[in-house]
Amino acid sequence: MAATKQLMDYAVDEAVDAFVLLKSADVRTAKNGKQYIALVFEDRSGEISGKYWDASPEDIENYVAGIVVHLQGKRENYQTHPQIKIFHLRLTTVGEPDDPNQYIEKAPMSRADMEDYINQTVFEITQPTWNRLVRKLLAEYQEAFFTFPAAKTNHHAFQGGLAFHTISILKLAHSVVKQYPDLNAPLLFAGAILHDLGKTIELSGPKSTTYTLAGNLVGHIVLIDGELVRACEPLKLDPQAEDVLLLRHMILSHHGLLEYGSPVRPALREADVLHQLDELDASIMMLDTVVEHTAPGEFSERVFAMDGRRFYRPSEPKPKES
Amino acid sequence: MAATKQLMDYAVDEAVDAFVLLKSADVRTAKNGKQYIALVFEDRSGEISGKYWDASPEDIENYVAGIVVHLQGKRENYQTHPQIKIFHLRLTTVGEPDDPNQYIEKAPMSRADMEDYINQTVFEITQPTWNRLVRKLLAEYQEAFFTFPAAKTNHHAFQGGLAFHTISILKLAHSVVKQYPDLNAPLLFAGAILHDLGKTIELSGPKSTTYTLAGNLVGHIVLIDGELVRACEPLKLDPQAEDVLLLRHMILSHHGLLEYGSPVRPALREADVLHQLDELDASIMMLDTVVEHTAPGEFSERVFAMDGRRFYRPSEPKPKES
Amino acid sequence: MAATKQLMDYAVDEAVDAFVLLKSADVRTAKNGKQYIALVFEDRSGEISGKYWDASPEDIENYVAGIVVHLQGKRENYQTHPQIKIFHLRLTTVGEPDDPNQYIEKAPMSRADMEDYINQTVFEITQPTWNRLVRKLLAEYQEAFFTFPAAKTNHHAFQGGLAFHTISILKLAHSVVKQYPDLNAPLLFAGAILHDLGKTIELSGPKSTTYTLAGNLVGHIVLIDGELVRACEPLKLDPQAEDVLLLRHMILSHHGLLEYGSPVRPALREADVLHQLDELDASIMMLDTVVEHTAPGEFSERVFAMDGRRFYRPSEPKPKES
Amino acid sequence: MAATKQLMDYAVDEAVDAFVLLKSADVRTAKNGKQYIALVFEDRSGEISGKYWDASPEDIENYVAGIVVHLQGKRENYQTHPQIKIFHLRLTTVGEPDDPNQYIEKAPMSRADMEDYINQTVFEITQPTWNRLVRKLLAEYQEAFFTFPAAKTNHHAFQGGLAFHTISILKLAHSVVKQYPDLNAPLLFAGAILHDLGKTIELSGPKSTTYTLAGNLVGHIVLIDGELVRACEPLKLDPQAEDVLLLRHMILSHHGLLEYGSPVRPALREADVLHQLDELDASIMMLDTVVEHTAPGEFSERVFAMDGRRFYRPSEPKPKES
Amino acid sequence: MAATKQLMDYAVDEAVDAFVLLKSADVRTAKNGKQYIALVFEDRSGEISGKYWDASPEDIENYVAGIVVHLQGKRENYQTHPQIKIFHLRLTTVGEPDDPNQYIEKAPMSRADMEDYINQTVFEITQPTWNRLVRKLLAEYQEAFFTFPAAKTNHHAFQGGLAFHTISILKLAHSVVKQYPDLNAPLLFAGAILHDLGKTIELSGPKSTTYTLAGNLVGHIVLIDGELVRACEPLKLDPQAEDVLLLRHMILSHHGLLEYGSPVRPALREADVLHQLDELDASIMMLDTVVEHTAPGEFSERVFAMDGRRFYRPSEPKPKES
Amino acid sequence: MAATKQLMDYAVDEAVDAFVLLKSADVRTAKNGKQYIALVFEDRSGEISGKYWDASPEDIENYVAGIVVHLQGKRENYQTHPQIKIFHLRLTTVGEPDDPNQYIEKAPMSRADMEDYINQTVFEITQPTWNRLVRKLLAEYQEAFFTFPAAKTNHHAFQGGLAFHTISILKLAHSVVKQYPDLNAPLLFAGAILHDLGKTIELSGPKSTTYTLAGNLVGHIVLIDGELVRACEPLKLDPQAEDVLLLRHMILSHHGLLEYGSPVRPALREADVLHQLDELDASIMMLDTVVEHTAPGEFSERVFAMDGRRFYRPSEPKPKES
Repeated sequence: MAATKQLMDYAVDEAVDAFVLLKSADVRTAKNGKQYIALVFEDRSGEISGKYWDASPEDIENYVAGIVVHLQGKRENYQTHPQIKIFHLRLTTVGEPDDPNQYIEKAPMSRADMEDYINQTVFEITQPTWNRLVRKLLAEYQEAFFTFPAAKTNHHAFQGGLAFHTISILKLAHSVVKQYPDLNAPLLFAGAILHDLGKTIELSGPKSTTYTLAGNLVGHIVLIDGELVRACEPLKLDPQAEDVLLLRHMILSHHGLLEYGSPVRPALREADVLHQLDELDASIMMLDTVVEHTAPGEFSERVFAMDGRRFYRPSEPKPKES
Repeated sequence: MAATKQLMDYAVDEAVDAFVLLKSADVRTAKNGKQYIALVFEDRSGEISGKYWDASPEDIENYVAGIVVHLQGKRENYQTHPQIKIFHLRLTTVGEPDDPNQYIEKAPMSRADMEDYINQTVFEITQPTWNRLVRKLLAEYQEAFFTFPAAKTNHHAFQGGLAFHTISILKLAHSVVKQYPDLNAPLLFAGAILHDLGKTIELSGPKSTTYTLAGNLVGHIVLIDGELVRACEPLKLDPQAEDVLLLRHMILSHHGLLEYGSPVRPALREADVLHQLDELDASIMMLDTVVEHTAPGEFSERVFAMDGRRFYRPSEPKPKES
Repeated sequence: MAATKQLMDYAVDEAVDAFVLLKSADVRTAKNGKQYIALVFEDRSGEISGKYWDASPEDIENYVAGIVVHLQGKRENYQTHPQIKIFHLRLTTVGEPDDPNQYIEKAPMSRADMEDYINQTVFEITQPTWNRLVRKLLAEYQEAFFTFPAAKTNHHAFQGGLAFHTISILKLAHSVVKQYPDLNAPLLFAGAILHDLGKTIELSGPKSTTYTLAGNLVGHIVLIDGELVRACEPLKLDPQAEDVLLLRHMILSHHGLLEYGSPVRPALREADVLHQLDELDASIMMLDTVVEHTAPGEFSERVFAMDGRRFYRPSEPKPKES
Repeated sequence: MAATKQLMDYAVDEAVDAFVLLKSADVRTAKNGKQYIALVFEDRSGEISGKYWDASPEDIENYVAGIVVHLQGKRENYQTHPQIKIFHLRLTTVGEPDDPNQYIEKAPMSRADMEDYINQTVFEITQPTWNRLVRKLLAEYQEAFFTFPAAKTNHHAFQGGLAFHTISILKLAHSVVKQYPDLNAPLLFAGAILHDLGKTIELSGPKSTTYTLAGNLVGHIVLIDGELVRACEPLKLDPQAEDVLLLRHMILSHHGLLEYGSPVRPALREADVLHQLDELDASIMMLDTVVEHTAPGEFSERVFAMDGRRFYRPSEPKPKES
Repeated sequence: MAATKQLMDYAVDEAVDAFVLLKSADVRTAKNGKQYIALVFEDRSGEISGKYWDASPEDIENYVAGIVVHLQGKRENYQTHPQIKIFHLRLTTVGEPDDPNQYIEKAPMSRADMEDYINQTVFEITQPTWNRLVRKLLAEYQEAFFTFPAAKTNHHAFQGGLAFHTISILKLAHSVVKQYPDLNAPLLFAGAILHDLGKTIELSGPKSTTYTLAGNLVGHIVLIDGELVRACEPLKLDPQAEDVLLLRHMILSHHGLLEYGSPVRPALREADVLHQLDELDASIMMLDTVVEHTAPGEFSERVFAMDGRRFYRPSEPKPKES
Repeated sequence: MAATKQLMDYAVDEAVDAFVLLKSADVRTAKNGKQYIALVFEDRSGEISGKYWDASPEDIENYVAGIVVHLQGKRENYQTHPQIKIFHLRLTTVGEPDDPNQYIEKAPMSRADMEDYINQTVFEITQPTWNRLVRKLLAEYQEAFFTFPAAKTNHHAFQGGLAFHTISILKLAHSVVKQYPDLNAPLLFAGAILHDLGKTIELSGPKSTTYTLAGNLVGHIVLIDGELVRACEPLKLDPQAEDVLLLRHMILSHHGLLEYGSPVRPALREADVLHQLDELDASIMMLDTVVEHTAPGEFSERVFAMDGRRFYRPSEPKPKES
């Protein structure tokens, strides 16, 4: 794949000719009564949408999420939003690339490196209760933790995104505890590792991610709290002991506000810090993508997850570091 | 106790001479630098506050929460709020009544009757998963369920208040499912019984009730969800099976709004109904007390738990029923 | 009509062949510049929408609200929302059913039964002022009260819906006053009967219901208050006497919050209860419809009148009652 | 009274020796258990509060609202709020001034002038329905309209304040209709005259003003709407005719927002303008008083009716007009 | 142009045949995949939109904002919103009118008259610091001040609108200071003249108005504050002297609420009045346009800048003035 | 000072005997009419309040803010808030410590170290415009920048707090740009250094800090923007050039929300990050103080600057780092 031009590399109005993955394919009815397919194309550089007009029943049967296709078209902007105008689309033939895994966006860190980083941090959780609970829950949800995205959309919505997001927070947390030594580092690290682990139950998996019934009716915050309580049994821990309650509180309060789904607001310094670091990493990741998709000297489209704000990409490139 | 006049029976400006329980006794410093004790007197008819000025160190040692005392004073109104102006206060002597249990406000239904009603309703939970979970959790928390108040203040803040409040909701629920037969009665009943059971962990007990650390850091909604998940283990139930999730959702969403501490909003008809019946019973109980403490033809003080509204007690008594 | 399959009975993808009423017919321009008619079909089982593409001027003249037509098509889902894909539409011919009244959704209780129930309740209003005001206003608006819907859309939007909604509240009110005997039953019943009577002035009538100018500029709450004041004159009542003010307050405060159009918030126990019962009945009626239109194991579309929440219909049918 | 120094004329720390009216006198208990009287002194220049410590039962009987007393003390500031430190207080003796009416703050316009202005404006209401309704309601509430305050506190809380506030709005309205000739002047004038007339029912009267039961349970906005509907009967007007509805809407919407007690938001240009002129006059009147009570170069205390803002009084006097 | 029928004069369904200016021309893709141009036509009477379907590449090149075209079509209503159904559109030929300036909507007051009015008012600013700052900044931004619109859309969105809006406020201010003589007239006038002057930097110019980068990143309120500080240097004024701060505060607080972009809330009587007069003039101007575009007896579309309210145009014409 | 026990070292109920600084001394009237002085004692370890009852005129003259006094008393808790019960207070005599500077709380970093850190960071601002503006403004406000507190109360309310808070943010910023290399480091550093520099104009100085008139009427955000614009003149920079606008935007948007006084919301990635780092440092500093003042196993009082939340101090000390 090395030499091939990636989806995100095409300039506006440039012709596109590439193998890409169909990330999603929704059949809709146009206002003229005919059907079209709203497609999202993906490769390792990112994703971009396009509309396949006047779709025949056969097209609808062929072009479904999860397969690799050959795409010819043009990179355009639709209301400052990038899209592909499709000229020609076809299934791959024998000998052409057809492995979806080669086209899925992944975390910019290998799984092995991520596992190392997490294991290293677990050693730093020197309080035995927290250490045991973290080990136990990580062991149970290990596979999903290292492959699931951190969200359906918005930020870290790629394979391995959940672990990558967790590690980004842990890196920030390491800087913070160094700068503010009164903070309880083991508590902050344990909370950071578990805070989003419930997403492995809330979301359906790394591909074509949707919400599960448990995700919709209970939510990842309370789901992982339930699993933590359940893990106390074999570890012979009292779920109402102070140290267990502190860790449960870290998880439960990490959305910061009741309106955002936390049943309690942060009442520990470390819980407040975890909430802030979570927001900091999520927003930078989101804005990196937003700014990258905006032309220099222009404002982005409204970013819904950032209160509908539009962000400016300066016309001048950023200065060289000293 | 039968012939004795009760605290709530005294009219404004009437002299008070009675044995009463000290429900709480907080030592404070007056603006002139001297200490006084802010007391709350209680008997089975209710509670009323009074201030014991210029308290000596000995007074402070004597007059503590939980003991029966002899009170002489006058029933007054302080800014439309009833209080006792204390003329004389003393400890009881030998032979005088001194059993605090005789002076504690209790639910207006005997424990036996409450147990009967709950047991009867459990029979109507015809879905096996919900029936087993309700039985298991009730068995574990039975003693507390029938003795704890439903809240520290506001409504049902008396011994047995938790079970009584639960039963009031169940009675309303029986009327509602009869009128709207599409509703899932067993789900509504199971949710109603468990919805506040977490208060047995959130609150410290039936007397001098305070919040526990678990109550402050986790909250009764998530505490009982955790216990429910734990109860699945011996019952060999999957906490993520649909029927278990439905019951968990009933509990988790019963505050109605995220801002009120529910991590999810009601997404089942029965969950929405449970939330509404909970509010209906709580508000009527609260307003009954408020109106009872207000003179005919007057507005009450602001009721904080009802958005600070003031309620009017009509000057005319309510008409006889036909 | 007995043997005919009703609109609500068709399964997804099932062919439809039926006589139905055109409830509404709005001519719109498609994005391709051509005109189409957005139709709503109705029979006694409910209503469902469909689009008639490429409408000729003659079609536009023919297919207007209020007539019976013959419809051939297919029951589909458009973004989880049911609709009819129209294959063929035609006017009825001689001998075919053409009486719109046979296809209008009606209250699930006969008018005679509704009148009986209301009359019965009026007897229970034992306070003379309230009894006379209720009789007088019911007499004046009787015809509209028993035929109007309770709203343009959302809940009880069918013929007789206003009286049916009022009766549902009265039934709940009867249960509540039995359970909480301190409540003033006659006041609650009188308030319940009058609370929405202003809708007979606010709305245009039982069919193709729209808002009147009086509805838009004054609103049903204040409209019925004005009529009540006017009714005092022949009854020789002082509109500022306490008992009249209590009843006016019941009506004026029944939306609960100023933001919802009540000029005063409930300041009587009975006013607060009326507000809550109004919401309880309206929300259950709305959700019954929503859930009925949702497939088992699926979430409904967002329900705007319930804060945009989506509701889940469990995949398992509800358990048999014991 | 001419030569006497007025209450508002005393500087901070200046000795006060004057006859003044007791506007209000509330008996309260100090934190040391003794009683004191919270007094408000008034004369035609305004009002100022003071505390009478260690009040004997005789003092409490003597110093009641509505009498003239002789006051000796010192003008002080308590947390930037002006007050009188009382040195000596006594009842008046024979021959000393004792007519409360000589000490009541009044509108800065004579009643005769106010009546003239209103009559003059009624002539400009050239639409017959509005003219007749305004005349009829003014005739009924004339005495109260020209003597009541416009509010219990905050702005225009003086005798004649209701009419004076109405006239201030009418003056602004005359300027506005001259500048924006598309506005319907007769509608704006009629609405302005009636907008607060319901205060004659909502408030108890010109002295020691409190809210009536009608004021608390219905409110001045709906009260005057009811009276307007009632006035239609003898005038043989239909309360649902367009011109009557326009006038009702002017009154009903004049608080601008539902949250402020209007059952409908302004839906007529003139209704929106009336709301804005009402706010403009009320806020200027309130701020004139606030700034007058603030020392040059200082910020006022928080003004609750203006969202708790503090207002600055510049240290330099305002420049001479050209 | 005198005899020609103007755009705003056409009735619904009337044939249109006129030379008009293209105010804006946005190319969009229809749901059928073809391109169309969303046009806004303008002449001195106002503006109206229309869609040019199935646009060829040549059409797209021809029909761009800023040129005069010949339009044939029909005046229609699309969801109560006026629009032109285009029958035929063509470029102008030699000899036909082609000067865009003849078709631009302008302030209803000549530039000379506006300059006179402003100059006259500057004389009334008798405080020397304010007078010098106003003169200095007006001199610098004179050309833009008299030609820019007051906003991109909503109100005063026409050439000269900024100066016209300023003058309207000044006229209201003159009435107000006459009625409330305690107000500091020179401060109010100086603040009114400068309050929106920053729009000359925030907006791109009188035609095809857009926001500049300075407008987006800083905003007109802070931009003019910066210019005022800069103007202090040559005038040898201290930007932190009290009189300069008062004027800066007038500008900075004129949006009234922090949520509306003012960094401080009004803390001077005159600042509060300026904010209210700004809203009064803006809302009347907006509603005059809204009502003019609404048929008698109908409600307008929702007006977004007025909280989405709809406004009613009475069916009866307004009465003659007396 | 080394061996002396510091104010923050005393346990509850321990006797206090120490020289301390009077940080503030407010004379108030008790409810019994006598005067007392509300004192705040300070030394380098922090501050604590106490009340001096029954103050004579001489006491009031003696005990004023800014002097060193000798204090004997007892460390108590008043509603979980620490205070000193004063037994004896006297002025210092000859030979006793009396230098206020020895008792003022200071930044935990020397001025020389802070200057070094800032100078070092300025070198990393490799974009010339930003570098020059930062140097110019730092040079102008240098003395105040290194001595002022960062706020009147809440966080960093000590001498040198402004520079120390700025440096804390810069340290966090260095970690963040290392972790997210797409961020524009020079812009983030320049914005961080200038973001609160306006506090040198908004606040009165390092001792007995109050708000200046400029602070109240303009606020520190806009004040420093004005100074930046003024600084452009001698540096021959255009205040509306893109690079200057980017830096102005960093300052103007750093409060994040309009409601918090920023006239614009962050529209640059770096501006959003600056806002978040500002909050992170401020909240950790505040909570460190809050938790330090709370007993192990207890909740703190409500922290107003953190939405009134209470924070828990775990009963167990935090675990040793690995």
